[in-house]
Amino acid sequence: MSSNRFRHYGLPVGKLPTGPSNSITDVPGVTVGHVTLHSNDQDKCIRTGVTAILPHQGNLFRQKVAAAAHVINGFGKTTGLVQVHELGCIESPIMLTNTFAVPAVTEGTLQYMMELDAGIGDWDGSINVVTGECNDKVLNDMRGLHVRPEHAVEAIHKALQGEVVEEGSVGAGTGMVCYGWKGGIGTSSRMVEVGDQPYHLGVLVLSNFGAGEDLTILGRPVGKFLKKREEEGHSQDGSIIIVVGTDLPMDSRQLQRIAKRAVFGLGRTGSVANHGSGDIVIAFSNGNRIPHTPESSFITMQAVREDGPVISACFRAVAEATEEAIYNSLFTAQKTIGRNGTLIPALPVNEVVAMLRK
Amino acid sequence: MSSNRFRHYGLPVGKLPTGPSNSITDVPGVTVGHVTLHSNDQDKCIRTGVTAILPHQGNLFRQKVAAAAHVINGFGKTTGLVQVHELGCIESPIMLTNTFAVPAVTEGTLQYMMELDAGIGDWDGSINVVTGECNDKVLNDMRGLHVRPEHAVEAIHKALQGEVVEEGSVGAGTGMVCYGWKGGIGTSSRMVEVGDQPYHLGVLVLSNFGAGEDLTILGRPVGKFLKKREEEGHSQDGSIIIVVGTDLPMDSRQLQRIAKRAVFGLGRTGSVANHGSGDIVIAFSNGNRIPHTPESSFITMQAVREDGPVISACFRAVAEATEEAIYNSLFTAQKTIGRNGTLIPALPVNEVVAMLRK
Amino acid sequence: MSSNRFRHYGLPVGKLPTGPSNSITDVPGVTVGHVTLHSNDQDKCIRTGVTAILPHQGNLFRQKVAAAAHVINGFGKTTGLVQVHELGCIESPIMLTNTFAVPAVTEGTLQYMMELDAGIGDWDGSINVVTGECNDKVLNDMRGLHVRPEHAVEAIHKALQGEVVEEGSVGAGTGMVCYGWKGGIGTSSRMVEVGDQPYHLGVLVLSNFGAGEDLTILGRPVGKFLKKREEEGHSQDGSIIIVVGTDLPMDSRQLQRIAKRAVFGLGRTGSVANHGSGDIVIAFSNGNRIPHTPESSFITMQAVREDGPVISACFRAVAEATEEAIYNSLFTAQKTIGRNGTLIPALPVNEVVAMLRK
Amino acid sequence: MSSNRFRHYGLPVGKLPTGPSNSITDVPGVTVGHVTLHSNDQDKCIRTGVTAILPHQGNLFRQKVAAAAHVINGFGKTTGLVQVHELGCIESPIMLTNTFAVPAVTEGTLQYMMELDAGIGDWDGSINVVTGECNDKVLNDMRGLHVRPEHAVEAIHKALQGEVVEEGSVGAGTGMVCYGWKGGIGTSSRMVEVGDQPYHLGVLVLSNFGAGEDLTILGRPVGKFLKKREEEGHSQDGSIIIVVGTDLPMDSRQLQRIAKRAVFGLGRTGSVANHGSGDIVIAFSNGNRIPHTPESSFITMQAVREDGPVISACFRAVAEATEEAIYNSLFTAQKTIGRNGTLIPALPVNEVVAMLRK
Repeated sequence: MSSNRFRHYGLPVGKLPTGPSNSITDVPGVTVGHVTLHSNDQDKCIRTGVTAILPHQGNLFRQKVAAAAHVINGFGKTTGLVQVHELGCIESPIMLTNTFAVPAVTEGTLQYMMELDAGIGDWDGSINVVTGECNDKVLNDMRGLHVRPEHAVEAIHKALQGEVVEEGSVGAGTGMVCYGWKGGIGTSSRMVEVGDQPYHLGVLVLSNFGAGEDLTILGRPVGKFLKKREEEGHSQDGSIIIVVGTDLPMDSRQLQRIAKRAVFGLGRTGSVANHGSGDIVIAFSNGNRIPHTPESSFITMQAVREDGPVISACFRAVAEATEEAIYNSLFTAQKTIGRNGTLIPALPVNEVVAMLRK
Repeated sequence: MSSNRFRHYGLPVGKLPTGPSNSITDVPGVTVGHVTLHSNDQDKCIRTGVTAILPHQGNLFRQKVAAAAHVINGFGKTTGLVQVHELGCIESPIMLTNTFAVPAVTEGTLQYMMELDAGIGDWDGSINVVTGECNDKVLNDMRGLHVRPEHAVEAIHKALQGEVVEEGSVGAGTGMVCYGWKGGIGTSSRMVEVGDQPYHLGVLVLSNFGAGEDLTILGRPVGKFLKKREEEGHSQDGSIIIVVGTDLPMDSRQLQRIAKRAVFGLGRTGSVANHGSGDIVIAFSNGNRIPHTPESSFITMQAVREDGPVISACFRAVAEATEEAIYNSLFTAQKTIGRNGTLIPALPVNEVVAMLRK
Repeated sequence: MSSNRFRHYGLPVGKLPTGPSNSITDVPGVTVGHVTLHSNDQDKCIRTGVTAILPHQGNLFRQKVAAAAHVINGFGKTTGLVQVHELGCIESPIMLTNTFAVPAVTEGTLQYMMELDAGIGDWDGSINVVTGECNDKVLNDMRGLHVRPEHAVEAIHKALQGEVVEEGSVGAGTGMVCYGWKGGIGTSSRMVEVGDQPYHLGVLVLSNFGAGEDLTILGRPVGKFLKKREEEGHSQDGSIIIVVGTDLPMDSRQLQRIAKRAVFGLGRTGSVANHGSGDIVIAFSNGNRIPHTPESSFITMQAVREDGPVISACFRAVAEATEEAIYNSLFTAQKTIGRNGTLIPALPVNEVVAMLRK
Repeated sequence: MSSNRFRHYGLPVGKLPTGPSNSITDVPGVTVGHVTLHSNDQDKCIRTGVTAILPHQGNLFRQKVAAAAHVINGFGKTTGLVQVHELGCIESPIMLTNTFAVPAVTEGTLQYMMELDAGIGDWDGSINVVTGECNDKVLNDMRGLHVRPEHAVEAIHKALQGEVVEEGSVGAGTGMVCYGWKGGIGTSSRMVEVGDQPYHLGVLVLSNFGAGEDLTILGRPVGKFLKKREEEGHSQDGSIIIVVGTDLPMDSRQLQRIAKRAVFGLGRTGSVANHGSGDIVIAFSNGNRIPHTPESSFITMQAVREDGPVISACFRAVAEATEEAIYNSLFTAQKTIGRNGTLIPALPVNEVVAMLRK
């Protein structure tokens, strides 16, 4: 991973320990893949991409994962949430892309799943694809619909290779802007112990929101003190998609409680979820798998006991990991020149770190 | 039970078999108790009461039952639903009464539970009481607040005696009006087989809604043909509380799906849930108990597999039992003269049955 | 319209008067267009299509309509509801198609809107497209993804021609099956008077649900008595999309109440919304338009007063029109032979009508 | 007001200006009244009370205010939210008290409203009372049910006197504990300009949550550095009720968006809304009144345009005012010795201020 991650500067976020790679892929079975589209094709400025998150490495349609979603602010076009809410599970890769690419990415994911499993839409049921999005029109020719279904398939194949998660201006994050600086993909994780057993909770964000002056890091209003840049034409609105994964067995109701805590991490970075934001949290547990065709009439689900300290530790974990994932998205993203010649600078990391160390 | 129940006339509702007593108490562990207040005290016309439903016979605070609620129409004052939704369980008797008696009944139930369990509100947490209501002001001096906390305690004690469920103008149903006729308490049940194992799903309603001309029984618009009565001053609004219990192990998400199906039974009797109705469904499964203090860090929940036919059979069961419970409330209730001398007649059962047999 | 509509047989549904054409297009400004794909292309059996509903004839992005949605059962893939819920409006044509065609139809609608309005996704915001779906795999090669974006554009252009609404096996209804018989598109409307002013409430359904034996018409269990057909391989699950439009000024909260009443019409036809159904209601009022860029800081919304009889009349209207629209979808649809040689017969209308007249 | 309020130390919270008294009563028409029960009656330690918030000074049943609620975490017993959600309005004083006093306070408020208006529950409809609560058992003999209905009536009468809002250990806040220190009532406000017209948004909190080490003020983790105290037996759980009022005309959907932003203020003080919390937000606008019996068939509602900066300014205002109201509750509350001799100290304000000024 990038040597530029937030924690490399010796600044811890919260008090829980991170997982080994401080990434959503610390959750056993979870992998991430990116396809980055960065070109000037036919005079069109393309700064966009696709990110795929696999909750586990098997056939997700046959072995679904318990899941839930929470809408912080619903000015967004994320698909698939109706069924997640009804059935409490996810049965596809979780895909991220730009707003206008949701149809192409959903179709590509559908094609991938149909190829993987001949039953889908034939003798067996249909499949629900979850695709989240942010609007990258500041840098990207979003109207050009440059993301195509094959890019989604490619992102899933990349995820299957199980490599270290790249952050910043990659995949769906290629054209995103966060607090006026280049944003995009960021990830982080926390460990939660239950008895002697360690469990993992990881977060991956697609960050694309906020006004520069609001940026707050570790409680410090750094945004106020960074050199003023012209932000003309950049709305202070914009969105964030927050994906939370864990191997702790939880049911969908518990995961919805988990999902609702991501807002605490988001808020600590300075956001109040402005009007024009599609701020959506998607949470899953691969510690509870729901077979498409169970072997008996009843299924047994494990769930964390809720009277004890574990559930509140998980709440803290998701808040901390969300906060740090946003910082990572800002710290690792690179200056990008995009549509209409717009330049979005990278966060001046050294300047920020100097402020934080004071 | 009354010899006047709907099914005694040889008219089946739907196609699933009923339980032995065709009552919510067919669900093992479930009992019901009524306190009926019917007097003319100090020139005040009292036609009201309290009904208690016990999801099981133990300490509900220590052994909670999985639960959910669905609001068909929310012009109502039912308490306790916020916590039912968050935690997916019920930890108190489920109480029914008139709208203005909700505070007294909730306080009485709280007193009962505090006496049962010295930890509540002391070294242990608080307790969530679920109290549903309908407005019985047509017959009852509701403003007089004649229901007191001790009546709630008494209804719970009655429930603990485990007797056959009385229907009609009893308990919370004493002053209720349904489709212009005397309504109140009704109950019904259905059996659902899973493998060779029989399970029970029971419904109890507190019926207090509808305009006379809309009454539909077994698909027949009988309300149109019954002798016109003056319905001056009786709003066509009004409410129904529907309590669904089962011994099938289900989690709260599944129970919410179950609760949402009661509306199909309600609709078959002619209702469209008019504006002024507090139509609320509360569903629980005592096949999934959640200990207040689990013995280990994880709890194991059983849930019906949802891809098979069982869940849809349960949907049908709740629709059928709700429909029949409403009929039972009408068939068993007795003519009542109440506040301002208002007379609400009993449904002319023989006339109705004759129509249905044609 | 077809001479085969339900009402042509002299059988009224409910008690409210219909609009002039007994169709959703009775709501001034609302039009509907279908594209039907019915071919055997490259040995693939194509029985599918697209239906577009325009809430008004202008630029919907610039003049949004107040809207809401209600999920009866969420085993479905309808897009766009997150934003409808947050902002209380619809800003695109409402599109219907098969489950796997949602991405293509959404992309096509997006292309149409981008061509109509150069600001979308450029100097102005993104746009939220609402696309509903049912699964037509019994008759159609749904895996073949034969619906393409241009079909959506074509359906919108058809809608702009403002012709009479075709029903049955057309548009998105081409491959749908309802209660074991050929289903698809159906529509109906009701009039609601406010003072002396007549208002319209119309419903259009895409029907694709139910087991043959459950079919109930006007309260009569006709499904039980129709000649038994083999229904092997046809799940009793399946979905319905219900679109409700009105010119009565309502805000989004009121429209959600309206949307929740469609279930009463659905239930009267015999459904209990089985597990595998994506039963979704989308309601809009073009009597309340929300400009994309209002001229002043406050907008003025009109809303029906809720204490009076109008709102409950609307509840009744949506229940009645939903019930009748489902009957129309069954009465007008034609026998269809589809994928794997499966034959889905038309409802034997004469036989049914004879039963109903008894 | 107390000279000890947070802002008196020259430490601004956020960037928007406060109203004249930096209190929810800056919203014209809004007043607050407290009844404090602080005694050792019959060896019972009573440290509790009631707080009443009047959205305006008239008959709230006849002139309702637009309203909404948001449940941050639902481990709570607040009443009345079902109807607020359905009808989008509040028609009673908003009452706060301890968890077990909700029935008594609701009954007292009902009595008050019945005395004010003879139609309620007689020829006119029932009334929905909204009562929020936190658990004060650490200091108060909550099981003793010492709050009685007349205390609610008294609190409303106090509110009608329209005095300056007392903060800290008063009214419902008498026995509350926040971040291990004495908490209770706090209030704050912000101004939002629309054109040249100033509008007010005020917040009142009942604070009773959090672990000492998590307390964060203005982004500084002061809780970590305050002298360690023994917190044995004090759960880190606990709740907050947040009441938001404004004179900006908003409809209930907009108010729900407003209510959802209080969590950003809550989060900035260090909370992640632990499991055992009933964290509830209730928001109203007295700039939009809904007559019980409108004069015409349609009502006209004003609403803030949502595309412009006003709505996001309101989001910021509620976050800032919530944060500052919590600080005020901590800064103004006084050391209290309660049940079992438990001593809850006041926040060491000077020590905290010194930290913040560094």
